[in-house]
Amino acid sequence: MRIGVLTSGGDAPGMNAAIRAAVRQADALGHEAWGIRQGFQGVLEKDWAPMPTRACANILQRGGTVLHTARCPEFLEIHRRADAAANLREAGIQALVIIGGDGSFRGAEALQREQGILCAGIPGTIDNDLPGTDRTLGFDTALNTAVEAIDRIRDTASAHGRLFLVEVMGRSSGMLAVHTALACGAEAVLYPESPDDSYQALVARLHANWLRGKRSSIVVVAEGDDLGNAMVVGARLRRDYGLDLRVVVLGHIQRGGSPSALDRIWGSRWGAEAVRRLAAGEGGFYLGEVAGALAVQPLARILDPRPAPPGDMGELVDILSR
Amino acid sequence: MRIGVLTSGGDAPGMNAAIRAAVRQADALGHEAWGIRQGFQGVLEKDWAPMPTRACANILQRGGTVLHTARCPEFLEIHRRADAAANLREAGIQALVIIGGDGSFRGAEALQREQGILCAGIPGTIDNDLPGTDRTLGFDTALNTAVEAIDRIRDTASAHGRLFLVEVMGRSSGMLAVHTALACGAEAVLYPESPDDSYQALVARLHANWLRGKRSSIVVVAEGDDLGNAMVVGARLRRDYGLDLRVVVLGHIQRGGSPSALDRIWGSRWGAEAVRRLAAGEGGFYLGEVAGALAVQPLARILDPRPAPPGDMGELVDILSR
Amino acid sequence: MRIGVLTSGGDAPGMNAAIRAAVRQADALGHEAWGIRQGFQGVLEKDWAPMPTRACANILQRGGTVLHTARCPEFLEIHRRADAAANLREAGIQALVIIGGDGSFRGAEALQREQGILCAGIPGTIDNDLPGTDRTLGFDTALNTAVEAIDRIRDTASAHGRLFLVEVMGRSSGMLAVHTALACGAEAVLYPESPDDSYQALVARLHANWLRGKRSSIVVVAEGDDLGNAMVVGARLRRDYGLDLRVVVLGHIQRGGSPSALDRIWGSRWGAEAVRRLAAGEGGFYLGEVAGALAVQPLARILDPRPAPPGDMGELVDILSR
Amino acid sequence: MRIGVLTSGGDAPGMNAAIRAAVRQADALGHEAWGIRQGFQGVLEKDWAPMPTRACANILQRGGTVLHTARCPEFLEIHRRADAAANLREAGIQALVIIGGDGSFRGAEALQREQGILCAGIPGTIDNDLPGTDRTLGFDTALNTAVEAIDRIRDTASAHGRLFLVEVMGRSSGMLAVHTALACGAEAVLYPESPDDSYQALVARLHANWLRGKRSSIVVVAEGDDLGNAMVVGARLRRDYGLDLRVVVLGHIQRGGSPSALDRIWGSRWGAEAVRRLAAGEGGFYLGEVAGALAVQPLARILDPRPAPPGDMGELVDILSR
Repeated sequence: MRIGVLTSGGDAPGMNAAIRAAVRQADALGHEAWGIRQGFQGVLEKDWAPMPTRACANILQRGGTVLHTARCPEFLEIHRRADAAANLREAGIQALVIIGGDGSFRGAEALQREQGILCAGIPGTIDNDLPGTDRTLGFDTALNTAVEAIDRIRDTASAHGRLFLVEVMGRSSGMLAVHTALACGAEAVLYPESPDDSYQALVARLHANWLRGKRSSIVVVAEGDDLGNAMVVGARLRRDYGLDLRVVVLGHIQRGGSPSALDRIWGSRWGAEAVRRLAAGEGGFYLGEVAGALAVQPLARILDPRPAPPGDMGELVDILSR
Repeated sequence: MRIGVLTSGGDAPGMNAAIRAAVRQADALGHEAWGIRQGFQGVLEKDWAPMPTRACANILQRGGTVLHTARCPEFLEIHRRADAAANLREAGIQALVIIGGDGSFRGAEALQREQGILCAGIPGTIDNDLPGTDRTLGFDTALNTAVEAIDRIRDTASAHGRLFLVEVMGRSSGMLAVHTALACGAEAVLYPESPDDSYQALVARLHANWLRGKRSSIVVVAEGDDLGNAMVVGARLRRDYGLDLRVVVLGHIQRGGSPSALDRIWGSRWGAEAVRRLAAGEGGFYLGEVAGALAVQPLARILDPRPAPPGDMGELVDILSR
Repeated sequence: MRIGVLTSGGDAPGMNAAIRAAVRQADALGHEAWGIRQGFQGVLEKDWAPMPTRACANILQRGGTVLHTARCPEFLEIHRRADAAANLREAGIQALVIIGGDGSFRGAEALQREQGILCAGIPGTIDNDLPGTDRTLGFDTALNTAVEAIDRIRDTASAHGRLFLVEVMGRSSGMLAVHTALACGAEAVLYPESPDDSYQALVARLHANWLRGKRSSIVVVAEGDDLGNAMVVGARLRRDYGLDLRVVVLGHIQRGGSPSALDRIWGSRWGAEAVRRLAAGEGGFYLGEVAGALAVQPLARILDPRPAPPGDMGELVDILSR
Repeated sequence: MRIGVLTSGGDAPGMNAAIRAAVRQADALGHEAWGIRQGFQGVLEKDWAPMPTRACANILQRGGTVLHTARCPEFLEIHRRADAAANLREAGIQALVIIGGDGSFRGAEALQREQGILCAGIPGTIDNDLPGTDRTLGFDTALNTAVEAIDRIRDTASAHGRLFLVEVMGRSSGMLAVHTALACGAEAVLYPESPDDSYQALVARLHANWLRGKRSSIVVVAEGDDLGNAMVVGARLRRDYGLDLRVVVLGHIQRGGSPSALDRIWGSRWGAEAVRRLAAGEGGFYLGEVAGALAVQPLARILDPRPAPPGDMGELVDILSR
């Protein structure tokens, strides 16, 4: 069987681990892996080639994706998906491993349902916001990167006795923000799903810390918080209370870097399992981790509501910042 | 209530996160935390003092343990445990948070059962070899440290086309070895629980890689493997096949370092939960993670058999090294 | 002799190494070191205390400054400097080690000249923009932090085939920008002292790379470049050419973090040497590195023009980006 | 002109930066760079190929050497060097960039003197033990790696109140040992060129620290110290004083890893300069850094005595460990 492998949507550390595992598992089972460049765009443009196992040497430890990635709005149209399927059939590619986030999985779901191409999804996004899995590739790495960055900022905050607002990624998900806040010992965290992060509550918290003698504070802000991003919240605090605060937007440094051990391990497990199932004729699923074990979900499940960060973690940030 | 906190056995990254969380949770609930130095030794020597929340500033990100640790063989004797309980009562310490591995938990179990001191255990050991929990503090950090070290070694192995045997910690457990091997893309792994790591199988594997054109290989060896440690296996390969190999023993660099995000988060959750339960009059338990969720186990469960690394992970190392 | 030690201005990694060395050298020579908190502010407020050698345990590897720092505009007034001198005399502090940048050295110079307090300066600023020294504490660490961050961004830039503008610190100095650009293999660098970084030249460079087949590029921008900061330059490129680029402002993560080996070594050498000279009755100088060796400069030399980054480094960035 | 580039001897971080710079400078000057694999071995076996500038994409940040390296004892024989020169002439390679240590430079010197091949040396060895240069590629990276590793060990040493002997590379040079000891705040350092590191002096030092209340100590040992390596010294201390100490041999983790900013910058400068000079018809030299500036030395100078670490650095370790 000829199996195509592609990465799609935003890149995430661990994608290369999944690519490597898919390619080598295919080889181990006597199948042939093809690398498709630039995600679904590459399917439309036939930008692909056989990918031998040696092409995967020394990629496990690298961030980004050796297959490159792109967003592909055309793929939202049914006739372009039909073109894609025709291209794949012509090239003898019977099955696809799609490494990406929810947009990519929706494309995969349609491709399988409408065109009968066997599709397997592997969750690859630093946001950790997919239904049906407790983990996505890149989340653990991004979390550690954010925490390390804030450890550095803490040095300065504490040397100067200053308030810092640090913005982490997460347009509609507070997963990264809450985990980061807990891991770096932040004094407060603002995130979209939070039940009670009003501006007043934040001010009260900072004031209480000040009275308790804390001279420096870190507030982690998810970019998509209801109060606005870190710049907006910072401007408001400056205006209302004249605080000499600093704003840091971590931005794209959270996306890259050598993947953490966990992201490499799950990328490897998922890549190998996806190919094992495709080779057995199974399709229309994506992989995940549920309760510590490898889980298999129907692709249609991607339409379920996104998971929210556990409410008690936000509470714990509060307790531990005293 | 006065609650004592101690770390015992080998140190592990994340212990400080647990100490900080225990102390601050106690404060939040209106109780008083005391820091006990040097583990059970400190209980015998009354080496303790009240630990205010400010004493926990800036320790979350530090390796080791601010309370120091020691092994305490005396604590195996019942009359010394009686002395310990007498000391604790005299000082008004009614409950203990014990952060450590299985030896420490056995001590805690006896102290609770015989002497009625409320004891809560928090798993702190880089070996990840405790029954009743999928995770122990320090494991994720040690794993990432080992993987980073081997990434460096891979540069040299590949520049010189050489075989390296890298020994990781694990006297009776292959947990660290197997996870490390998978995460660093090792060509083979030797560990105590392995069903089939005979010397012949290793040689056959290395030979097959050589025929496939691989000029450099990494073999991860758990220090307690049946074939012997990395030095022993290396000497045998040199003698039998004249291989120009190198041996690296990672040793104590695996124990230290700033804890990973996961170790900080679980240290924080467990520290807070232990105190919450002790404050409610509960004792005789240890905390863990089972299937992704916080779990509570009776201390007596520490006598159960140790968990072994999943067999399919060793197999996956094999498949992915092609 | 009683010798005060303070850190002033922006914090920089390596300051703690200098504090530790000053304190321990004082002890070794039979003198007494006092730690002054919050820079010159602490002198005005008598916020000081004896600093025993044990207070310097485990600070060598930490970013920030254990003595805290502050900017102190009052110190620009002569009568406040007279107050400072009076406070110091009253407390028996005869000499000062001042770790900071050019503002701090100007204060030190005036304090010595007007008030006769023995002052020794140690260059501590991540900007590396002081006359009379090839190196300042924190520069090497900040450089490595910026380079690591851009390595991560490169993963994403290359996965998406995208242009990134990355802003590094440097309001009036391109030192950090040029060194960073060379070390991370940037396609271009914009910095204040550059002879020729016109907007047209930048556009031409990016265009040439595109024609050569490069699909991703990194441009390093010093925050104080004539063309504006990275946001401004990015907006202009977007407007003029519709480029799908991304802007990352590294910001305060460059200031913190565990100091690099070089920053620890020079902090240690300078701290020890400053105290050795003060103890011998010498004052009115600051230390530096010139041509690889420890150098001594009169404090008045701080008024000399700032050094500019070597012109051929910018050129080299150009040659190496092909 | 056709210019060959090779790496020889032990690999060192920064070698890839030098390769990249040589290749791109050649391209910028209108010449052609060839990559030679496996050092001088590759010259004897004609294991070479043209190296386009794109082959150098994304190698700047990688440890090891993409051209691989080997030791080549045959090259000590004059008739094999004649074979090498014949091979080079046949392939039209008129000049060589040789990145390596003193053995490699001796080979280069003979090749230029006897056979008239234009040779340029670039110092690449983590030992920093070449005459005529204050710096070699890989030293700064190895130093930072060793320091980071010892920071981790310090966590454990301090948690357990224990003595650690840590062995760093350096068969005949104490450069790495002394710099590491100063940067990690070691209590003592043993290295070959030390004037006074007798066993008695070490014992006295450790004893004095103990009396001063220090419960944990780190001793850095160069592998080639006169007293023996860390294992030997450790065994002696255990036997004589029954100390519960630990020995860690850092080994090959010091060789690899992403190069530090300095190693990348000097690799880039040297690679570009070597080709600029070769292209102008100059040969028989190697590059270095002397007093902060790029220096050019005749290849014959490699026979000069090796530099020793500054004596006052060892003394400083002593003063700062109080």
